[in-house]
Amino acid sequence: MNAISRLIQPRSVAIIGASADLQKTAGRPLSYLQKHGFEGAIYPVNPRVSHIGDVPCYPDIDAIPGVPDVAIVLLGAGRAQQAVAELASKGTGAAIVLASGYSEAGEDGQRLQQQLREAAGPMRILGPNTIGLVNLTDNIPLSASGALEMDHFPAGSLGVVSQSGGILGALLSRAAARGVGMSKLISTSNEVDLELADFIDYLVDDDATRVIALYIEAIRHPQKFRAAALRARLAGKPIVAFKIGRSEAGAQAAVSHTGALAGQDTMYDALFRQTGVIRAQRFTDLLDMPSALATGRTLHGRRIAILTSTGGAGTLVSDSLGVADFETPAPGVETSSTLRALQTGMPAALDRNPVDVTLAGLQPDLLRGAIRALADSSDYDALIMVVGSSSLAQPELMANAIDDCLPHTNKPILAFVSPHAPNVACLLNQRGIPAFMEPESCAVALDALWQTKDGLPSESTNAERIDVALADLPHGSLNEAQAKALFARFGIPGVRETIVSTPTQAQEAAQALGSRVVLKIVSADILHKSDVGGVAVGIAPQQVSDRIVQMQKEVSLKAGVCPDQFLVQEMVTDGVELILGFHRDALGSAILLGMGGVTAELLKDTSMRLLPTHGGLNLDDAYSLMRDLRTWPLLDGYRGRIKADQKALAQAIVAFSNMVADLGDKLTVAEINPLFVLPEGQGVKAADGIAILSE
Amino acid sequence: MNAISRLIQPRSVAIIGASADLQKTAGRPLSYLQKHGFEGAIYPVNPRVSHIGDVPCYPDIDAIPGVPDVAIVLLGAGRAQQAVAELASKGTGAAIVLASGYSEAGEDGQRLQQQLREAAGPMRILGPNTIGLVNLTDNIPLSASGALEMDHFPAGSLGVVSQSGGILGALLSRAAARGVGMSKLISTSNEVDLELADFIDYLVDDDATRVIALYIEAIRHPQKFRAAALRARLAGKPIVAFKIGRSEAGAQAAVSHTGALAGQDTMYDALFRQTGVIRAQRFTDLLDMPSALATGRTLHGRRIAILTSTGGAGTLVSDSLGVADFETPAPGVETSSTLRALQTGMPAALDRNPVDVTLAGLQPDLLRGAIRALADSSDYDALIMVVGSSSLAQPELMANAIDDCLPHTNKPILAFVSPHAPNVACLLNQRGIPAFMEPESCAVALDALWQTKDGLPSESTNAERIDVALADLPHGSLNEAQAKALFARFGIPGVRETIVSTPTQAQEAAQALGSRVVLKIVSADILHKSDVGGVAVGIAPQQVSDRIVQMQKEVSLKAGVCPDQFLVQEMVTDGVELILGFHRDALGSAILLGMGGVTAELLKDTSMRLLPTHGGLNLDDAYSLMRDLRTWPLLDGYRGRIKADQKALAQAIVAFSNMVADLGDKLTVAEINPLFVLPEGQGVKAADGIAILSE
Repeated sequence: MNAISRLIQPRSVAIIGASADLQKTAGRPLSYLQKHGFEGAIYPVNPRVSHIGDVPCYPDIDAIPGVPDVAIVLLGAGRAQQAVAELASKGTGAAIVLASGYSEAGEDGQRLQQQLREAAGPMRILGPNTIGLVNLTDNIPLSASGALEMDHFPAGSLGVVSQSGGILGALLSRAAARGVGMSKLISTSNEVDLELADFIDYLVDDDATRVIALYIEAIRHPQKFRAAALRARLAGKPIVAFKIGRSEAGAQAAVSHTGALAGQDTMYDALFRQTGVIRAQRFTDLLDMPSALATGRTLHGRRIAILTSTGGAGTLVSDSLGVADFETPAPGVETSSTLRALQTGMPAALDRNPVDVTLAGLQPDLLRGAIRALADSSDYDALIMVVGSSSLAQPELMANAIDDCLPHTNKPILAFVSPHAPNVACLLNQRGIPAFMEPESCAVALDALWQTKDGLPSESTNAERIDVALADLPHGSLNEAQAKALFARFGIPGVRETIVSTPTQAQEAAQALGSRVVLKIVSADILHKSDVGGVAVGIAPQQVSDRIVQMQKEVSLKAGVCPDQFLVQEMVTDGVELILGFHRDALGSAILLGMGGVTAELLKDTSMRLLPTHGGLNLDDAYSLMRDLRTWPLLDGYRGRIKADQKALAQAIVAFSNMVADLGDKLTVAEINPLFVLPEGQGVKAADGIAILSE
Repeated sequence: MNAISRLIQPRSVAIIGASADLQKTAGRPLSYLQKHGFEGAIYPVNPRVSHIGDVPCYPDIDAIPGVPDVAIVLLGAGRAQQAVAELASKGTGAAIVLASGYSEAGEDGQRLQQQLREAAGPMRILGPNTIGLVNLTDNIPLSASGALEMDHFPAGSLGVVSQSGGILGALLSRAAARGVGMSKLISTSNEVDLELADFIDYLVDDDATRVIALYIEAIRHPQKFRAAALRARLAGKPIVAFKIGRSEAGAQAAVSHTGALAGQDTMYDALFRQTGVIRAQRFTDLLDMPSALATGRTLHGRRIAILTSTGGAGTLVSDSLGVADFETPAPGVETSSTLRALQTGMPAALDRNPVDVTLAGLQPDLLRGAIRALADSSDYDALIMVVGSSSLAQPELMANAIDDCLPHTNKPILAFVSPHAPNVACLLNQRGIPAFMEPESCAVALDALWQTKDGLPSESTNAERIDVALADLPHGSLNEAQAKALFARFGIPGVRETIVSTPTQAQEAAQALGSRVVLKIVSADILHKSDVGGVAVGIAPQQVSDRIVQMQKEVSLKAGVCPDQFLVQEMVTDGVELILGFHRDALGSAILLGMGGVTAELLKDTSMRLLPTHGGLNLDDAYSLMRDLRTWPLLDGYRGRIKADQKALAQAIVAFSNMVADLGDKLTVAEINPLFVLPEGQGVKAADGIAILSE
């Protein structure tokens, strides 16, 4: 048994600082263990009493007669460190440290936390500042949370790891009320040692767990998280994550709470997507999605049948599904006639969807028949049962009917409970029928099922590539020409251009570049050239020399520097304008692709993909980045336009990502804007760009 | 007392088709009336029994000894009509017809419904196909819904009108469970006579009602609705509406259910916005928003304080508020020091927001002090209290503390209940403290308060305008030149252009129009000219004659028609491209403004505004249409660009709306695309357009 298994399934538990007053926080762990029939050894440590109830108490850690698998440390931050050191030297598997006042409390706390880590040596630590954990599978509570004041834990197949202790309690009480069963509940909080990824790994191997739910404030070790998440996906155990810090305000609240560096939220989106983690958008989704995923059923299409006995609620569900882009087609002729045969002479609406059997249809045989007919029908991929007010009087009617039908179909069957009837929802969930109190939750749950349908996400394998010589790199803030030269080294072509110093040179250069050219100042210092009058577009060659003189004057006036070098560039007119850049933060480096032009900029049409641990993106990644743009049709022959050179764009994205990977932290800023994608077969051209390299 | 008052506050109730079996649907109305102590006369009509319980029964309507204020008709569609006729001739105020099989059941039902209307004469009808109504203020249930099986109705200030009977029951049971009190609950269903607007009018005058909630499938009489909604707003009674049919699937389900024509959903958005109706996006919002609005408090800014004793839940709320664009700034120095003075020496986090008083802060005095400090602080506009797991043991602690503070502040104080604790949420709501179980609902409720902050929406008053001669209108599908001539009559300038028939004419025309021109075929039949090669842009005058010959060939090939007329147009290069059109459906006519260009088209950046009953939009409306565009900055000097001629655009929108209003149903289609808005002072120019006029 490894240390994490010993932590979660201990045969012996030491409680350091146990109180004899079972109402106090420090009295709860012992009381909970006894209440739920823990059969292993319990070693309370308290120098002031000899027994707590009938359990012998020990004056200090040294006096504990065995080697505990786990110790719950209830002491304050001041004394916890010493206890941890003693527990470690005794060979304890892991310590759960509840004390606060560590990294969440500023720099002093940060230091204290580091000392705690060192005191533990090889012993593992959960916390500090944690509320502990509950092993619901084996009925072992290792926590002081008041939220555990319940007679029976709702055991089931959902494993939950939360970086917040308070949320753990909220989730437990909400799940219990809804009949959603859990396997393990773990609060990691400050994560001085054990963290999210460790417990994902554990839950992947845990037979009782089928689905994993995460409440995340910040991921401290992204690579470890990625590996664990991909392992879960490979094992067929979906992960649902609710991540706070979506807004700047929330991120700051999270930071001050955990002391961890939160990455930008869109980076988390990319991370989750690339590792197959399903993101919960609302707090309630964190239970709604897993309850559907725990059934292990797959949604193979988006056509949903709704079976109801009350028109209004059926319509409510149908409308919510429609908003979420599910289809609710009417039953085909065959399905309709099967339904009609069940309910002859009734005023039921059986040729529409929602299929309304009316109150008269609420008989066990009829219901079973209708469920079977819809579940067997090739018209549908899933079924939602609407539970109406009649369930208040007959809470089991619907659950029994669905129960009988479940073994005969692989399709998901969910329920929407229309009146306030928590007992009915609870009963359905306990029977393995995901039941929801809000119509929108049905769509959310189906969407979660839909997301697991696809194959495994795979870590990028790098494309074949040539080595790029990095010996003679420039550094500092590069001017436009240098930046594009850097991009060109990695294989991204730029527009044709010439650097000139005099009006005469400029005119000569322009004549070689076509009927219209672009004229720009060359400067490493002025990043926004157009703001100071340093860009002119569509200039005829014969006007170039005059225009240069004028530009020199204007820039001198606005920027206080007289430019002495200019770029004369070919003017690209038939390309789609994109932005290609990268973003780096605590989560890693990501390539960012955006549609360019002023309208797209205002509407923020961008997509993002994290680089793998080593190397850049491959061509598949690059294509998926392109297709994620809402304006992707502009690249794909929208309304009879000529298709853009997608292949060349994909190659440019790969090349850019290779540059980001190869240069690593040396590269601080790099962006091509605009990158013109020309018609198919004509390639791409970087028309402008910036780059900053550290020394 | 008018008929609707008699319907809702009856002194006597006839029950036609009352059953002696109180368990049956037809037995319920009498049973409910008695259970809730109705003190007026009850006249059950049933020829087969002499009494139901101790209430005398009448063999037929004629035998009823008085004139009932209201009659509940429990007969099937076949017999209901005769009963309605008899009730009418007796002088009954209104009949509630429960039978189904009317307009919701196709054409035959539609006819039956019309006959029912005629049979009623001057008597008002609620329904048919309704579940009835409940007057909770006076404890009068007039319904057969099983959802009324409760001992006490949750009386309060929310008036609900629902077009679905089933939903009415769902709302009642959900409100009761949450402690949200209602004044009146009315199910209008098929609305053969009394409809949404009638009951909005009633509720505006009803002293017990402070907020109105609507569950809408389709608005049958938009003008009546607009008038009633504006009246409610004027009376300071906010309306919250949940409208299904948001997706096409949902709309179809709604149509089949109600038989009413549903308008396009974006038209409803415009209607609600223009009448100050707050739209509920999720079903639960329909109770969440009113519970906050019922407090009558106003939100004057978006800075929200969060007071918590548990870090995780506080962060959860803060993050949800951030996502919804609320601010959660840290308390200022003064507020912080007030907080610190309350809780000296505690490890509480009192200089951040969420303000975390920790478990130690959960004492009545401390809580009251902290609430007062935050409510009094000029740093905040509202306060959210987080109720943690400790409330399970002390359900009244928080409610009492807030209660004591409420009279001392005008600011909204809401609560978020983190664990599953419905009793705590219910208690808070009953005390007038809006309490929510989902963090996102706090933001939704605040947003509802925010929406009522603004002044009254006003029906458009028309701008001053000149009469447009309509005598010699063209008709049918107009060609581009005709369409623009039509727009020009109403005051919308077009680009300079000449119609030509020969290459030579074209070249002459081009020379007068600048260095580059646009060349197009003239055709009333080909609506998408560019699809057949009928548009050429940026042609130099000397190339025009060649290009015309080429265009003639290409169009002949692609469209099978050889064009004999062409437009030579000036080419506009420095304008912002917009689309200006209109949409007409059951809700009325609306002007639609959209950002043009291919990117904006893909991203669907449009805004919409319904015309008033008579006439077009005014300049204020036009400016608001412009500002509603997400890319509005493009017109407003984005990043140092020249401002567009907003005034000219506003005038063009008004002119276009006048055309739509003046031509009425005669105008089937009209769209200017693109409409170029030139730099400030230079006006707008319609560069292309279509119009279809009926004869």
